This record gives sequence, C-alpha cells and structure tokens, in this order.
Amino acid sequence: MTLQIDQRRLRAGIVGGGRGAFIGAVHRMAAELDGESLVVAGALSSDPAKASASAADWRLARSYSSYAEMARAEASAAEGIDYVIIATPNHLHVPVARAFIEAGIHVVCDKPLALNVAEARELGSLVKARGKLFALTHTYSGYPAVLEMRALAIAGELGEIRKVHVEYLQDWLMSPLEATGQKQASWRVDPARSGLGGALGDIGTHAHHLAEFVTGDRIASICADVRTFVAGRKLDDDANVLLRFAGGGTGTLVCSQVCCGEENDLRIRVYGTKGSVQWRQQEPNTVLFKPAAGASVELRTGRSFKSAQAGAVTRVPAGHPEGYIEAFATLYRAFAADVRRAARGESPQRDYPGINDGVRGLEFVAAAIASSSQGSAWVSIP
Amino acid sequence: MTLQIDQRRLRAGIVGGGRGAFIGAVHRMAAELDGESLVVAGALSSDPAKASASAADWRLARSYSSYAEMARAEASAAEGIDYVIIATPNHLHVPVARAFIEAGIHVVCDKPLALNVAEARELGSLVKARGKLFALTHTYSGYPAVLEMRALAIAGELGEIRKVHVEYLQDWLMSPLEATGQKQASWRVDPARSGLGGALGDIGTHAHHLAEFVTGDRIASICADVRTFVAGRKLDDDANVLLRFAGGGTGTLVCSQVCCGEENDLRIRVYGTKGSVQWRQQEPNTVLFKPAAGASVELRTGRSFKSAQAGAVTRVPAGHPEGYIEAFATLYRAFAADVRRAARGESPQRDYPGINDGVRGLEFVAAAIASSSQGSAWVSIP
Amino acid sequence: MTLQIDQRRLRAGIVGGGRGAFIGAVHRMAAELDGESLVVAGALSSDPAKASASAADWRLARSYSSYAEMARAEASAAEGIDYVIIATPNHLHVPVARAFIEAGIHVVCDKPLALNVAEARELGSLVKARGKLFALTHTYSGYPAVLEMRALAIAGELGEIRKVHVEYLQDWLMSPLEATGQKQASWRVDPARSGLGGALGDIGTHAHHLAEFVTGDRIASICADVRTFVAGRKLDDDANVLLRFAGGGTGTLVCSQVCCGEENDLRIRVYGTKGSVQWRQQEPNTVLFKPAAGASVELRTGRSFKSAQAGAVTRVPAGHPEGYIEAFATLYRAFAADVRRAARGESPQRDYPGINDGVRGLEFVAAAIASSSQGSAWVSIP
Amino acid sequence: MTLQIDQRRLRAGIVGGGRGAFIGAVHRMAAELDGESLVVAGALSSDPAKASASAADWRLARSYSSYAEMARAEASAAEGIDYVIIATPNHLHVPVARAFIEAGIHVVCDKPLALNVAEARELGSLVKARGKLFALTHTYSGYPAVLEMRALAIAGELGEIRKVHVEYLQDWLMSPLEATGQKQASWRVDPARSGLGGALGDIGTHAHHLAEFVTGDRIASICADVRTFVAGRKLDDDANVLLRFAGGGTGTLVCSQVCCGEENDLRIRVYGTKGSVQWRQQEPNTVLFKPAAGASVELRTGRSFKSAQAGAVTRVPAGHPEGYIEAFATLYRAFAADVRRAARGESPQRDYPGINDGVRGLEFVAAAIASSSQGSAWVSIP
Repeated sequence: MTLQIDQRRLRAGIVGGGRGAFIGAVHRMAAELDGESLVVAGALSSDPAKASASAADWRLARSYSSYAEMARAEASAAEGIDYVIIATPNHLHVPVARAFIEAGIHVVCDKPLALNVAEARELGSLVKARGKLFALTHTYSGYPAVLEMRALAIAGELGEIRKVHVEYLQDWLMSPLEATGQKQASWRVDPARSGLGGALGDIGTHAHHLAEFVTGDRIASICADVRTFVAGRKLDDDANVLLRFAGGGTGTLVCSQVCCGEENDLRIRVYGTKGSVQWRQQEPNTVLFKPAAGASVELRTGRSFKSAQAGAVTRVPAGHPEGYIEAFATLYRAFAADVRRAARGESPQRDYPGINDGVRGLEFVAAAIASSSQGSAWVSIP
Repeated sequence: MTLQIDQRRLRAGIVGGGRGAFIGAVHRMAAELDGESLVVAGALSSDPAKASASAADWRLARSYSSYAEMARAEASAAEGIDYVIIATPNHLHVPVARAFIEAGIHVVCDKPLALNVAEARELGSLVKARGKLFALTHTYSGYPAVLEMRALAIAGELGEIRKVHVEYLQDWLMSPLEATGQKQASWRVDPARSGLGGALGDIGTHAHHLAEFVTGDRIASICADVRTFVAGRKLDDDANVLLRFAGGGTGTLVCSQVCCGEENDLRIRVYGTKGSVQWRQQEPNTVLFKPAAGASVELRTGRSFKSAQAGAVTRVPAGHPEGYIEAFATLYRAFAADVRRAARGESPQRDYPGINDGVRGLEFVAAAIASSSQGSAWVSIP
Repeated sequence: MTLQIDQRRLRAGIVGGGRGAFIGAVHRMAAELDGESLVVAGALSSDPAKASASAADWRLARSYSSYAEMARAEASAAEGIDYVIIATPNHLHVPVARAFIEAGIHVVCDKPLALNVAEARELGSLVKARGKLFALTHTYSGYPAVLEMRALAIAGELGEIRKVHVEYLQDWLMSPLEATGQKQASWRVDPARSGLGGALGDIGTHAHHLAEFVTGDRIASICADVRTFVAGRKLDDDANVLLRFAGGGTGTLVCSQVCCGEENDLRIRVYGTKGSVQWRQQEPNTVLFKPAAGASVELRTGRSFKSAQAGAVTRVPAGHPEGYIEAFATLYRAFAADVRRAARGESPQRDYPGINDGVRGLEFVAAAIASSSQGSAWVSIP
Repeated sequence: MTLQIDQRRLRAGIVGGGRGAFIGAVHRMAAELDGESLVVAGALSSDPAKASASAADWRLARSYSSYAEMARAEASAAEGIDYVIIATPNHLHVPVARAFIEAGIHVVCDKPLALNVAEARELGSLVKARGKLFALTHTYSGYPAVLEMRALAIAGELGEIRKVHVEYLQDWLMSPLEATGQKQASWRVDPARSGLGGALGDIGTHAHHLAEFVTGDRIASICADVRTFVAGRKLDDDANVLLRFAGGGTGTLVCSQVCCGEENDLRIRVYGTKGSVQWRQQEPNTVLFKPAAGASVELRTGRSFKSAQAGAVTRVPAGHPEGYIEAFATLYRAFAADVRRAARGESPQRDYPGINDGVRGLEFVAAAIASSSQGSAWVSIP
C-alpha cells in the first residue's frame, strides 16, 4: 500500500556523514525531529566498508557505496527517497547536488554551497532550470530567537539600522590540527576540498548570512583584513571585515578559528534608531532588546517572543531550553512542508535558506579575499 | 520479514499526549531523537475523535481509543510495540502502567509516579514481580551537565558534601489559571487527578530527585513549610523545605508555581569540603565549578566535562547548545538499550530513573505535607 | 576661625581599624567620599605602637591609645570630632558606643550591634535617653539598587509579597582559619568577642536586615537549622532558615561561611503578586525586574532606576559601575546630614539603619539559635 | 606649622567641574579616596557666581574665578596646591595645563589631551622641558582587572598575541541631544571645543589606550570607517576600525555614541597563542581567562588575581565590588606617590598614563580620520 504524501513521513537519503563525521548525525536528528521525515537510505562514506557499517549503525533500509548509484536507484524506486541530504566535505556539494537534481530529487545541502563563485552560480542555474527544491543549512537562522530578531527588524521595531556587529569565533584550528591527520581539520584547510575560503567559508558565510537575515538588509560592500595565523596553512583562518549595508548601516564582521578558548561563539548585535537587539548562539534562548527609551528587556523563547515565526518553531514550554538540533530541525520542517507542497502540485514557500543564499555566501568569501589582497580596499558584493 | 531487535528501531506506543497536551510531543521527539525508536501506535486521548486526529497528526500506524485495548492488541500483534510511553495526567499513571505491565510490555512513565505512596508502592511491587523494565522521566538527570556534576560528586572531587540548595521555581499558576478551564492547570490542581501534591508533586519531585541524583546521597529528613497562595486551590502551590542528608549535609529545597516571572527555574548548588558546583537548567550547558583553592571554572558541555557519562550523551560539538529535548532523549536512549538487552536475554543496566525513584518521590511529597501539617516538624523519609 | 557646621567638613574619629584590620579603612573612605566628613582622630588599636603607626598611615591629626581617653578629649576639644566611628570587634561595640554617647558624641557603629539581645537593648535605651544619633552600618542598604527595590516594593509595584529568598554565602571560614591565628577569623569564632552568633551574627544579620528593608515588611517568625561544620568551632558557621513575614509572605534565609568558592554572595529575590525583583551584591548595579505580564527587565543604576532614593545616591553616569565603598558612603552621607541637622537644632531624618535595627538583628540571631536548639521549632521575633 | 610632605595630605586644586558637570566631582572623590590628597582650591567655572556656589558646595578653602589667577596665586601661596586637576572641556586642556606647568605646578588632566596632534605635541614638549609631573586620566587602566590582564600579557601567559577586539559603545548621542542645549553634549559635538574627534576623541582614545595598555603592544596602523550618523553633527559619532599591531596581531576597534541601549560598554578581548582574556567595564571585577588547554576560568578582583599590580589597588575583600571611582583613584594614588617623590627629590615612577599617552591618543584620532577620508586606506601611527 502506498500512502499519500500527507499520510506518511517523507523518506530522506543522506550522502556523507558516516562514522567519524559529526554533521551527518545532526542532519539525521534534525530531519526526523518533527516527525516529518525518516532517513531511510544513505551513501555514508566513499569507503564501502565504512558506508555499510555506518548504515547499520543508523539501521538504514538501503545503503549505497556511491552517491551516483544512490541517485539512480532512488529515483527509480517505487518508494524512493523524497529528498537527499548532502553532508560531505565542500568539494562534493556541487557534484552530489547535480547528480540528485538531475535525477529529479530535491536537495538539502550543507554550506558553503561550492568551492567558488563560478561553481555556485552554475549549480544555481541548474537548480532553477530543473525546478527542484534546494535548502542550504544556515542552521542559525532556525533559532526562534533569530526569527524573532528578524521579525523585529522587518517590522521596524528597531528603526533605521545603523550598526551591525557580527562575529563567529572558534579556536579549534588555533594549532595545526590538520598536521595530526584529524579528519575534520584536514579537509577544511585544503583548498581542493574546502574551496576558496578557510574560516571565511566555514563560518564567515554563517556570519554573513545571519547579518543579512536578521536585518533584512544586504551587505553592499566590505573592506577586509584576512589572515592565516597558523604557519603553513594555505587558507585563511581569520578575518576582520568592515561592513557597509545597502540601507546605509555600517558594521564589522569577524570570523576566526584561532581565537583561543572560544567554542562556537556566534554573536550578533544590531543597533537601530529605535532599538537594538543582541544575541549569542551559545545561550540561544535569550534576546536582549534595548529600546531607545527605557530599560533593557530580556526576550525569551516561548515566553516573550511575539512573532508568529518564532512561535511556530518553539517546541517546548518556556524555560525548557531549545538548542542547536532544534534550530536545525526548523529548516528541515520548512523544507519538508515544501516537499509536500510540491508533491501536491502547490507552489513552494521557500522559507529557509536556499540556492541564492549559497551563491551569495561564495560572493562574500570572494569579495573578502579580493579586498584583503588589494590592501583592504572596499569591494562590492553584487 | 521480521528484523532482529538490533537491526531495527524499537517500536513505541504512547498513551496520552494528544492535541492540547504538551508533553506527549516531547516524549515522541525524545524517544526518536537518537534513532533507537519510532513511535508507531497511540491511545492519544480518551476522546475518540481527538485520539484519531492526533494520531493522524503524528502519522501513527495504529491508533486506539482506549489504553486497555491498546495494551491487549499490541501485546498480541506480530509487530507490536516494544514499550509504551505514559504521558497522561497523574491519576492514570498507575492504571495504564498496570495494564501494559500485565500485558508484558515495558513502560516509560511520566512523573510523579502515582497519586500517593500506597499506590506507588503497589505498582512498584507489580513491576518487580513481572520483571518488566520501567523508566520514570526525571528528565533533568539526562543533561550532560547533571551527569558531570554527579560524576564529580561521586568521584570525591567535591569532598564531603556540606550544603545542597536546590530550587524549582515557576510562575504559571500564580493566578487561578484553573478557573479559566486551561487544561494543564485544571488537572494539576485537582487532587483526584494530580494526587497528594500540587507543586510538590509536579516539580518538587524533580528537585528532590536532582538533589539525590547529583550528590549520590539520600535526603534523610525534611522540615517543610507548605503553602497554597492562590485562594480556593486545594493543593499546595509552594513549599520551602529544610533538608538533612544521610551523609551529614544540610540544605534547602524550594518549589513554587507562584514565583512571578520565573519560567522553569530549576537550579542546584552543591557545596563540599573540596569544591562546589552550580547549575541552572535554563542555561544547561555550563557548570560553575569552584574548587577550594583557586578560581571558579566554567565547565562546559562537550568542552570541559570529563566524565564518560556526560561524554556519551553529548550529541554535537562544543558551543552548539543542547537542550531539554536532548536531555529527555538521554533517558530514552538508556532505556532503549535496556529493551534491547532484555530482548537478547541480557541483564538490564537500569541507568535511568526507575520505579524506586518514583516511590521515593511520593514519599518525599508525603513527608513534606506531614511535616508542614505538624508545624514544620522534622519528618524522616524511609 | 571656627566655621559654621555647614561651611566645613564634619570631623570624624574612629575606634579600631588599624593595621591588619580591613573594615577601618573602608569606613574612612566611605565617610570621606562625598566630601561631607574628614577623619581626623583615632584610637586605631589597643596596642599603642600600632595605634600610633596606623594614625601616621592615615595622617590623622590626633591619635589616642584608648577609646575612653579619646571620648573625653574629643568631647572637650574646641574642634573635637562631630561623631565617632566604631570599627572594632563586636565585644567592644557597646562599651565604646556607651563611652562616646555618654560624652555627647554621635556614633556610627559596625554590626552586629552587641554580643547579645540584653546588651543591645540596654544600649538602645541609652541612645534614646541621651538623644544622640546612632547609625549601624548595614552597608548593603546603601546600594542604589537596594533603595530602588525597596521603593518598588513600598510603592506596591510588586503587589502583595509572597516569597522572599535571601542568602549570604561566603567560604572564608570553611577551614579552621582561626587555628592559624588569622586575626579576622580568631575573634569572629570566639563567643567572648563575637557574641551569640557566628555566621548568624556576622552575615545573617545583614541578610535579615536586607529582607526587611527591601520588603518594608517584618520577619515575624523563623524556623532554623543552625550548624557548625568546622570541628571544634564554638559558634555557628552556617544556618538554613525558613521565614514567615508579618504580611503573610514566606521564604528562606541562608547564611554560611563554609560554602566553598563563594566570596561574598549576598542575594535577594522578592516575589509578589504583580512582579518580582532579584539582586546580587557582587554585580550590584543591576536589578532584574520581572513583571507579572511581559518580559524581564534589567533595571540599572543611573539608567532605569526611577526612585528619588536611588537617584540621590548615584554618583557617576550610567555604565560606570558603583560598588561597595559607594554603598557604604551612602549611609555616611545620610548620617552626616543628620549630624548637621542636629547641630542646627533640626530634627534628624534617620534614613539609615539605626539602633533599632541593631536590636532587631540580635533578636533574629537569638531566635535562630533558639529555634534550632528546639528541633527547628517556629520562634517569633518581637 | 608646616607639615612635611609625608606627614600631610597633598593639596589639590581643580579647574572646571562645577555644578552641572559630572566629571569634576568624580575627580574630587578619586583624588581623595585613598587619603592621599584633599581638594582645597578651585576655579570651578568660568561663570563667577557658579564658581563660587560650586566651591561652597564642596566647602573649598579657596575659590577662583579664573584658572590663570588660580595658577598665579597658588604658586606663590605658602600652603598652595601641590597639583592641579583639569576637568574642563577639551579646548581648555592645553591652555590650563600650560598655565599651571609654567607656574611650576604638577598636572592631572582629563582626556583627550588636546584639540589636535600639534597642540598635544607642543604641550608634550613643555611638560618635558619643565620637568613637571603630568597624568592623563585614562581611568580604565586603574581597574585591578585591567592591571591583571596587562600583567598576564606581559608575563607571556597569553603567548603571542594574535587578536584584539576592543570596543566602547554608548548611546547618549544617538539623537541630536546638542540641539536641546544639554551642556555635556553641546561642547562634545563642537569642533572648537572638542577638537579633531567626536566619539573618536571622547571614547575612541580610551579604547585605543586600553588596547595598547593591556597588550603592552603598539597599534602600528589602522584602517577606519568613520561616520556621523546624526544629521547636522560636525564631528564623528561612530567609527569601525581595523587594527594591526607592531607585534603582528590584528583586531578591531569600535567606538560609537549612537548604539541604542548601550550605557558605557567598554570591552576588550585579547587572544594569544596560549590563552585569552576578556573583560567588560560594566562588570569590572571579573576577567574571563581562557587557557589554550582546559576550561574557562573566572579571575576575580581580590580573589584570584595574582599580579602585585592588581593586588596593590584592591581596597576591599573579595566579593565586595569595586567600581569606577576606585579605578579612577588608582591613577591618583600613583600620581600622588610621584608628587611626594618629587617633593623628596626622588625620581618619579610614572606608573599612570601620561603626556605621551595623550599625544598618542591624538595621533590615533588623526590617523582614523585620515584613513576614513582616504577610503579606509591603512594609515600608520608613529
């Protein structure tokens, strides 16, 4: 018996993310959390033994040793997957995405989208041409707090935005971890697998997306000082960037993987003429709102967030903290709704980061590198 | 084809938790998060229409309109459930648990275990007699931070424990919410459905369990001042309690549902002769550790927790916050492992709160009420 | 030329507080901070050499080797002191105060007022009989934040007060520091010099005063579990106390000098039917105000405090933190204004803790000890 | 009788700071706090009536209506002032300083030193030529926490410094406050009275000084985006600046007086190869130290600061917060010690910000403005 799309959980497949990876398991938890999807198939590793063992760990119904085979087989199966999740190193994002889109399967892809702007734009064209759904996992935009800040900004509660300070600081690459063979580090510092940017691509793109997402504005030009602090490393591991927004605001963006003691310190502050908001990912359920008149206010998930957007993705009562997996699941929930809409012949709503955000992220990385190589000249982003 | 227990996800059923409830959905997410179980059957409401609609929301394979029917049917089905989740108001905990245990099905039950001590003990006897697995969802013991604090205490890193201050403060019953017909409030203030305790049963038992769990010690006697602040309410909505531990420590426990502005403010501080720890559930990834010599240290999930217990249930890298659903899932993961062990004929490990904790919680509630009614006399807990 | 009282700084003398003491210097800074007084004379130690050296450190105009001599000499000097500061161990508070009051000199005295209730009451009678001004340095009531909380409570902004949780935790006596001969520890654990209470007298009285001061209510009865954790110590070093207020509220008071890792952790939380406030002395410029409807608000010194009382004692613009010395100075400023009023023949305003607060503090200590010795019976405070 | 310099408090005079000013009273409190000085004379306003009334408020022995008269009179008086405090708007710093230095009187001056670099350098030459002592009140360098961070950096505990992020955010000029006639705002936005920089001069110089002071390194070049957000304002009210240090580190400096909701939010983070430190002026008694291996540590004033420098200026026991006035007093204490040394014919130690820091601050402001006007080109600072 074949259930209608609305009577059953969606079937998802995953490429990458086998044993030793970290993000694959997070994708699985996030995809399944809201009861919309089940991960049933995977090409979890390019190493067949590892792929097989990893699939057994997850009790997958179907395991493949190549993504190409998976795309072909699932596309023609009676109960094949409804969408694929790409959780590989960066250099595989585009080829894997291409294979599944060409096979007619929707895609959820990790970021950054591609190795460079050209590759990103090419994939962008393909996605549009084939009309498949495409989500890019800028996870942080799934936090209720981030949705609330965006709602405040767009509703004009902050007034005209003057300043944005966004930063994403880590320390895990402060030593040459790649020299030890650590898998996560090795590919991230390798231009062939990581692409144009090091820290810029890995976390700078998150900061860039967050700044634009929260403000609803566009970073029009940047002036960057990009560094590689760890000797011998080929890609950047740090960048200080001045920002100018299309709407007239200015600000700074800092991303670094060499800031001793920082775990995953993504923060944003947005200052407008009527109010400001501050948020820190490591304590994600509080937004500090500072109105122009009066005292600072602690807005809290499930308690004092007012937007429908934040409310819709709050899963537990106030005071029960929600975290990273839930934020991730928010993207999957919105994407799953679009997959169902598409199956019913309805128009997608695309209320999750998508292919354009992916292209834009690469344009940011390219602009930062160009600016820095020109002595921190101001460089426009299209 | 019937898969072996280790080749498939466990099948779970759920009683209660339909539309309008909040905790049912949390149980489902928690049970499924780690990929160990799928919720496939439910008796989600005593109202058949609501039960059916709720089951469709969750896309359950099988929906029942009574728990008794569900117990019978699932016990005899070829691919019946491996365990049941009880997410009903308190007065149903024991009858539902009895029905499933007698049908030979393992049980995960919400707290407090029962309406009173006698009922709790009776169920305890049944559980032991039938040899079925039983988990009680004292969720907070599933946080990595709580496991780390317990590990520190048990390893002697805190020295001899002198003081414990634990509190659980909420405000959601600070007005007579029950008078509005709000469902969650209505049954919680009704002795027939809530049992012996109001705030004491609903959240005092969590605080009591946490204090004993973290210290590895036993609260031997208490001296309580129990109150009902909202006029007309039949059960307590607040209690201040002095504690004496078997190991010689003292302390305080406060639980309240009338503390204006508090969401779900569960905190514990444990002071020993060698060090102290502090933790707050609303920011659950940090433990403040204060050694007798030297500066305070921020221990963090995934970063500076050292115990195997905390490490085993950390799902994402440091700096990506984990929350309440993940803590809940920790209990389900441990329980699922026991269900598999039982299926394989192995001995269970029971490393999750169980039937004894449930009995003990009711004993605490009874002792607090007895103490208060005797002018705050010291009352022993067995 | 003798300046009129309003044209000159007041002249203060000090008893105690020489080299090796800590609180004497704080009294001097606090007395002088607002430009109202200058400390010009002292009997800084009972050891003449130390008294003399200490006076030279402070560049005092007049140094005495006995307080009795000082009282006599200053009372008859043309430009004698306007008031004396008593910064000795507890057992000298009453005899020194008596000497100066009998000599006609106003008194500022450290707390606790006396060794026991009888002595406190006797001094109380003397003070009233002689009509001299008397301030007791419950320093914490001088913080703008504390004045603001009190103003909120008294204005009814918190509604009817239901719960008060106050605590004062330190760790400096967690080991038998007195055995090392450390001066501050030695007298504080000696009943002959410290009086009835150990931690209860030293810091419990502060917590007790703060709870009554902030709420504007009276603690009517208490139920206490008083302990001495460090073996061989004669006085308490810890107490857990249940509170009942005259106005119907309940709560807890905890004071301890054996809580590992705590510096000087005085906190208070007051929950009413309309709002709650929280404050922590170690970060004294923020009050967290939680209204019954809406989000938590961070009230801040100089920024969002609204009361005239807080505003009057805010010395620097918002964001420039004020601390303990400033809080202390607030008491001295109010006292100095009364000294000037008295000199001009006006009625004093007595808007600082005074003799009655001192008596009341001893009554609290006595009640706590009585309660604990009666198995934590409820004991009334007059 | 004339007391020797070590037997008496130093006599200080003050120019500026009368009624309506805020910083004058802070200078007085800070100068007197440690018992080293007394403010006895003043030219508190250019308005004679206000000068006189203000002097009466402070009960000064001598009041002048012009600083020039004051310099002459005090220089020749038998018990004239030992040093003068300059607490005027910026344009008077240099003329007043010149008058007193030429009269042979040491100077404590508020920042920024001068209207521009040329004026600053000229005063620098004069100070050196006359051999008088000169302190510039970069107050924040007087906090124990700042001294501790500097000690850690200089001792190599942070390793090689890679990143410095310093910021100073306020909101008090986010609207055209100057249009209301508010005195503090009016002169600060007027180039004739404020000088080259607006926010850059007023608070950017503090941030610049702090970054160099804490690291013990020199900011070698900067790349700035300087803005005036409030229409019609002639001076900058905001700047985002990229930093390069002589030692190889990079970073950002942000100063703004238009950041809605910020009081006086000066923060610094310094990341080295061995550890990092973070500090925030609004909660000034905690330094977060993050070593390369292990957990974050909360270093606290009076508790876990290890440097002699921090210890020497800690006035109260741990847990009693020290604030802005105390930090300010730290500079005065060091300066007073030098005044005594000079009087005894000893060499000064100059362990407080001085004339060179003042020149350097103006050079920073000039460089920021030059960079910004050149399209954010990198500009060196001498």
